[in-house]
Amino acid sequence: MGSTHQSWEQIVSQKRTARDQLLAPYLIDDIEHRGPRALNVDQRSRLEKDPQVQEITDIDNIVVLLQLLQKGELTAESVIKAYIKRAVVAHQLTNCLTEVCFTEALEHAKALDAEFEITRQPKGPLHGIPITLKDQFNVKGLDTTIGYVGRSFSPANEDAVLVQMLKNMGAIVIAKTNLCQSIMWAETENPLWGLTTNARNPSFTPGGSTGGEGPLLALHGSILGFGTDIGGSVRIPQSVAGLYGLKPSSSRFPYHGLPVSTEGQEHVPSSNPRCAPLPWNELSFREIQQRPLVIGLILDDGVVKVHPPIARALRELSAALKAAGHEIVIWDTSDHATAIEIMDQYYTVDGGEDIRRDIAVAGEPYIPHVEALVNRGKPISVYEYWQLNKRKAAAHKKYLDKWNGARSDSGKPVDILLSPTLPHTSVPHRKFRWVGYTKIWNFLDYPALTFPVDQVKADRDQLPEEPYKPRNSVDEWNWNLYDAEQVDGYPVNLQIIGRKLEEEKVLGAATVIEKIWKSRI
Amino acid sequence: MGSTHQSWEQIVSQKRTARDQLLAPYLIDDIEHRGPRALNVDQRSRLEKDPQVQEITDIDNIVVLLQLLQKGELTAESVIKAYIKRAVVAHQLTNCLTEVCFTEALEHAKALDAEFEITRQPKGPLHGIPITLKDQFNVKGLDTTIGYVGRSFSPANEDAVLVQMLKNMGAIVIAKTNLCQSIMWAETENPLWGLTTNARNPSFTPGGSTGGEGPLLALHGSILGFGTDIGGSVRIPQSVAGLYGLKPSSSRFPYHGLPVSTEGQEHVPSSNPRCAPLPWNELSFREIQQRPLVIGLILDDGVVKVHPPIARALRELSAALKAAGHEIVIWDTSDHATAIEIMDQYYTVDGGEDIRRDIAVAGEPYIPHVEALVNRGKPISVYEYWQLNKRKAAAHKKYLDKWNGARSDSGKPVDILLSPTLPHTSVPHRKFRWVGYTKIWNFLDYPALTFPVDQVKADRDQLPEEPYKPRNSVDEWNWNLYDAEQVDGYPVNLQIIGRKLEEEKVLGAATVIEKIWKSRI
Repeated sequence: MGSTHQSWEQIVSQKRTARDQLLAPYLIDDIEHRGPRALNVDQRSRLEKDPQVQEITDIDNIVVLLQLLQKGELTAESVIKAYIKRAVVAHQLTNCLTEVCFTEALEHAKALDAEFEITRQPKGPLHGIPITLKDQFNVKGLDTTIGYVGRSFSPANEDAVLVQMLKNMGAIVIAKTNLCQSIMWAETENPLWGLTTNARNPSFTPGGSTGGEGPLLALHGSILGFGTDIGGSVRIPQSVAGLYGLKPSSSRFPYHGLPVSTEGQEHVPSSNPRCAPLPWNELSFREIQQRPLVIGLILDDGVVKVHPPIARALRELSAALKAAGHEIVIWDTSDHATAIEIMDQYYTVDGGEDIRRDIAVAGEPYIPHVEALVNRGKPISVYEYWQLNKRKAAAHKKYLDKWNGARSDSGKPVDILLSPTLPHTSVPHRKFRWVGYTKIWNFLDYPALTFPVDQVKADRDQLPEEPYKPRNSVDEWNWNLYDAEQVDGYPVNLQIIGRKLEEEKVLGAATVIEKIWKSRI
Repeated sequence: MGSTHQSWEQIVSQKRTARDQLLAPYLIDDIEHRGPRALNVDQRSRLEKDPQVQEITDIDNIVVLLQLLQKGELTAESVIKAYIKRAVVAHQLTNCLTEVCFTEALEHAKALDAEFEITRQPKGPLHGIPITLKDQFNVKGLDTTIGYVGRSFSPANEDAVLVQMLKNMGAIVIAKTNLCQSIMWAETENPLWGLTTNARNPSFTPGGSTGGEGPLLALHGSILGFGTDIGGSVRIPQSVAGLYGLKPSSSRFPYHGLPVSTEGQEHVPSSNPRCAPLPWNELSFREIQQRPLVIGLILDDGVVKVHPPIARALRELSAALKAAGHEIVIWDTSDHATAIEIMDQYYTVDGGEDIRRDIAVAGEPYIPHVEALVNRGKPISVYEYWQLNKRKAAAHKKYLDKWNGARSDSGKPVDILLSPTLPHTSVPHRKFRWVGYTKIWNFLDYPALTFPVDQVKADRDQLPEEPYKPRNSVDEWNWNLYDAEQVDGYPVNLQIIGRKLEEEKVLGAATVIEKIWKSRI
């Protein structure tokens, strides 16, 4: 940007036109016939006229896809072409794509295929697998706007470290996806790329801020997506879409090459350049699958009560786990409200200065939530900021002590926590208000995984007859949001949480829990 | 404190009197005959009239001491009593002790002995080993003043996590040691406990801020000391004393239970509550001992040139390493000045507010260096602070890239760096001005070990005939400090540095290097 003197609207128009030209060859013309649907949402992006594309993108399983690629039964080019086609349909339905690199992806795929012809060896453990990235990861040659108009036309000079690693493993980037202005909200909208909608229904939000990935993955336009999560920004959209989403501990993956709002803050690491040299711990992953688990069960964070389908999912899953021999401990969340209160103070410590400056470059409007955020608090001094950090450190220590002190009926320590991801399922646009069930784990820097469990069943998930007496205004807002018929069939996800850097335990426990849950019927 | 209305002088007097009463039974009366000496400094604290004490405290080797304790050839009580006696002599010579807990230590030792009588098993890997701690570690029942008068008479409610761990391993705390007001300077003085002096000469500084440990350890008044290091505060006093000192990566050890100046800052972690779950990596420790090393050699940081004995030590040691088959790569330090400039900005981001408040509680005077520090900079905004963090993160990435890109003549990557610890050896009080050789590794959060190599040899370490043309005022100051005769026989330490969380590599390389160096003669 810099020297150009265009209005923000002109820049937006140029950016969208450039993208749309790249999409044009793949557009389909029957979008209006692909109406909302709750169950089997991938049917909305079907490409019946293109059976090979349909077949490839319906595999929807990285391991199976890899086997076919490694046996030479599929070429990387055919896989990438198929995903590009279906990604464009997903985009037509939800406005999920920002930067696309289809040409580069196809070239990349052809090069992989040519190499494979000679070596008969895959390039790496993601050979030929299409990936998509939140538009916050630097990909050489593409803009990283993170939704700010003023960051347009400044392509990245190099790939982010994680992108480099993925490419070295054989993965192929096909596109980048939409996110929220400033990334500080749980929905997906910005003046540059517009509003992204839910995979199931255009009137509903996909969640956010990594909100382009959820619909794209749900509609089989990608098979592996990457985002960032500083308060739930990966877990929320994946939960809304009924998919899997892992937020690791902040130092588990390299973060270099991801510009971000409020860059430079270190109080709540979305992740940081201090990547811990921890290889995958297969032993820990397996060990936890071979014995009875002790599970801390979060039914309620004491601030916002969850909707009936989520309460039912927690009840039914924990009963199934008990029946399978695992131990359940009701988890005390009386300290969650204070943790959230500390964390909320951090959102405005700079008085919104960082976001204001990014917006000022091109001068686009604020979306309402971000406008409220930047006007919410006065900047505080570095000394006051340190006092906040002290409160945070004390809260961390107390939580760790609580965890270390907790024991099951049989006297065993707690392995993982099982919790809601959100107090509600899918909601209409601009209805998000409480993300305390996800952001508490960012505050504590614990790994957390959201995973699909069930769907809303309107007949079973009615509100209780007795009217609910809300505890506070957000609780009231949330309770009034619930309409069983409106969300009938929409996904219900839950969340598994581990202690810092215990990603393997989280994933191992999730494997066990999912097996039990799926085999219960 | 709080409600009392005493002058700071009254509080100081009460604190010192209370300590001195505990020391009284052990005081010796021939201190004036124990004059300065450079070589075999432990002779200054000899207790000839007490041969058992002399014998035990001259073992000065934890492994050997442990064996004697484990075989039952020494009781914990006899070991602790011996160290108490010699610690008091060390204190009479250097003013190194602050809080003492001799009675508790002896009781603790007796309890260990009684248990050992029954089990014949040591309590843990530090069974009966006396330890001392910088007066910044919480020890239940003792004050943690960190040199502030206003923190007097507020005993800690519980042990710091690390202290708990050490006690569980069988270690016995005998005392806490002096440090610098605000811990933000490389010498050891505060109005509460006064000035601590060098083990070799009362006119010289012991370094700091963990400056009570160096003389105490050098004079055999302790065998294992713990400090904190945010710019060199462990390595500097240990280097001045000719001893070993390790600064680990910030997340390698638990920090909880250590009050600190500028608490809450997270920009340059002295350490943090996010302790990485990394067990000791024996494989890494051994692997590096079984092959030729590649060593990056720092001869000069480009800002302050080192004194002749340090240059000689680096030259001779690197020649010996080469002769033993290791590879040396001259290390580029052209980025060090900028790193130090960024780091120096951090020291004043709060405009000295944190230190001012601590001093204001009792109103004691500032020591000159701290007064200059709190008046040096205006407080900056949180937004500006984040911009500084961004510069830091970029510098981290560049340094890591530099390291990862460096290759030896034979094409191998660099294992560790070998560097000066300080540009000078021991110096008179209030002469410290440049700690860039230590604090760069705090800035980068790399582990660093200081270790003894040689002594100043006045006959060989004269200044070159040609006058040196200093690059800047600190360089000039440092160069003018050098007087070969004045420091003849004083220790020369060097430093080994590894990449973040590679403590085992640092210690493994140090083992190899020391073996080669000691066997060269």
